[in-house]
Amino acid sequence: MESVTTLTVRYAETDQMGIVHHCVYPIWFEAGRTDFIKQAGISYSEVENRGILLPLIQLTCNYISAAKYEDTVSVTTSLKNITYSRLRMFYQIRANESPKVIASGETLHVWTDANLKPLNLKKSAPDLYELLYRQVSS
Amino acid sequence: MESVTTLTVRYAETDQMGIVHHCVYPIWFEAGRTDFIKQAGISYSEVENRGILLPLIQLTCNYISAAKYEDTVSVTTSLKNITYSRLRMFYQIRANESPKVIASGETLHVWTDANLKPLNLKKSAPDLYELLYRQVSS
Amino acid sequence: MESVTTLTVRYAETDQMGIVHHCVYPIWFEAGRTDFIKQAGISYSEVENRGILLPLIQLTCNYISAAKYEDTVSVTTSLKNITYSRLRMFYQIRANESPKVIASGETLHVWTDANLKPLNLKKSAPDLYELLYRQVSS
Amino acid sequence: MESVTTLTVRYAETDQMGIVHHCVYPIWFEAGRTDFIKQAGISYSEVENRGILLPLIQLTCNYISAAKYEDTVSVTTSLKNITYSRLRMFYQIRANESPKVIASGETLHVWTDANLKPLNLKKSAPDLYELLYRQVSS
Repeated sequence: MESVTTLTVRYAETDQMGIVHHCVYPIWFEAGRTDFIKQAGISYSEVENRGILLPLIQLTCNYISAAKYEDTVSVTTSLKNITYSRLRMFYQIRANESPKVIASGETLHVWTDANLKPLNLKKSAPDLYELLYRQVSS
Repeated sequence: MESVTTLTVRYAETDQMGIVHHCVYPIWFEAGRTDFIKQAGISYSEVENRGILLPLIQLTCNYISAAKYEDTVSVTTSLKNITYSRLRMFYQIRANESPKVIASGETLHVWTDANLKPLNLKKSAPDLYELLYRQVSS
Repeated sequence: MESVTTLTVRYAETDQMGIVHHCVYPIWFEAGRTDFIKQAGISYSEVENRGILLPLIQLTCNYISAAKYEDTVSVTTSLKNITYSRLRMFYQIRANESPKVIASGETLHVWTDANLKPLNLKKSAPDLYELLYRQVSS
Repeated sequence: MESVTTLTVRYAETDQMGIVHHCVYPIWFEAGRTDFIKQAGISYSEVENRGILLPLIQLTCNYISAAKYEDTVSVTTSLKNITYSRLRMFYQIRANESPKVIASGETLHVWTDANLKPLNLKKSAPDLYELLYRQVSS
């Protein structure tokens, strides 16, 4: 499964180079992640309401070309793998319906309880583990 | 004329109070303004390409109730008035298709050249002035 | 009492106009508020740990001239008034040690419990009320 | 050479997990980079005024533990290497004067002209190349 999230670049997202500031791409990845999880069948809000958090432990982002104000950008999100303790997701950003990828990245997350203590997802929420496991891209 | 912009609340837009941070609403207003101007018949990118900028000189925002992560929010934008030197816009934020306004605000802008020097819009871009003047809400 | 907070403008805070984006000033006001409350004798973290929150209900900001990347900006913060239910603060931004104010603003807050329900500060935390009341600028 | 930049965590930098949102660390890295370059003997503003930009092409960030509101964080910045076309910098974040690193990261940049076209720094600004080359950490 892949999810596709479409956004319009905001003026506040630009910097004085005249392009989108690099800190914005992780925020777009996150918007993609929100949609991916929802499309898998549960909202991330519900996950948190069950006392399960998914903080990042690693982020990588490659910037290939620049997005600009008022561009329509799409975030294609997929799940690279999931274990009882971790989740790794992959993102590609495109602009204005061009097939060219302008940025890509990965995020690595750890499953934790509400106090940010790591937990075993298979024990804490086996249904959630199964749900997401079925979405791993081959 | 009114424009309506629909957005999904991003995780990065929340703060430790568990609600959307107040600095985000002006960014949503701006997304509304982008759509309003485009709907009037010209994109704000084109306006800037003609060497005309529209910086803020005043912002007010009233926070009535809180938006939360994953809420669908709508920004209803209208033009309160326009003169040769200034523009005043009005915004209302609603959440999750409820008619209840959760925040409202105004922005006052000044027309300037690319060096942020005030200009007379009627002289510099009479077509733009006419275009926007027709959109003033009564 | 007044507090003075000194910050260096970040690249991410600029936009494609080449100046600090207007949504940043409320964040600087907040940094000023954090320092003001600490200087009054209690940190806002401690206030929140006691189950008392201070969300905004109104923001106004006047933009007089623009801050730029790498400018040193100072935020002068004062308390305009405090009641059992509300707090109003005032801010002035200056840049690069010039006496000229480049932006000013006010925030109006309501005292609430951790569920964002309004509370009476005099009843819930009389010491905090007294502490802040003594800081009201005349 | 290393530079050390000290910052206070802003409320707006937190998210509903009660910790600093992960998109903030690249902004802190950038504040560190600003200070590093200035400490090397030229401000990044001056670099840009000479028509030379330094956009990112890669970002990595490792999140080890979390920063919280009102924490004092320090960013230790060093230059890993510089070529005629690229620059790689390294960052470590610590909190509240503990020696423990709570996050670390790298940014890879390309030297470009004002139109974001790659340039050869040795040809375009040999003095800048020499200045920075002397700061490479061994």
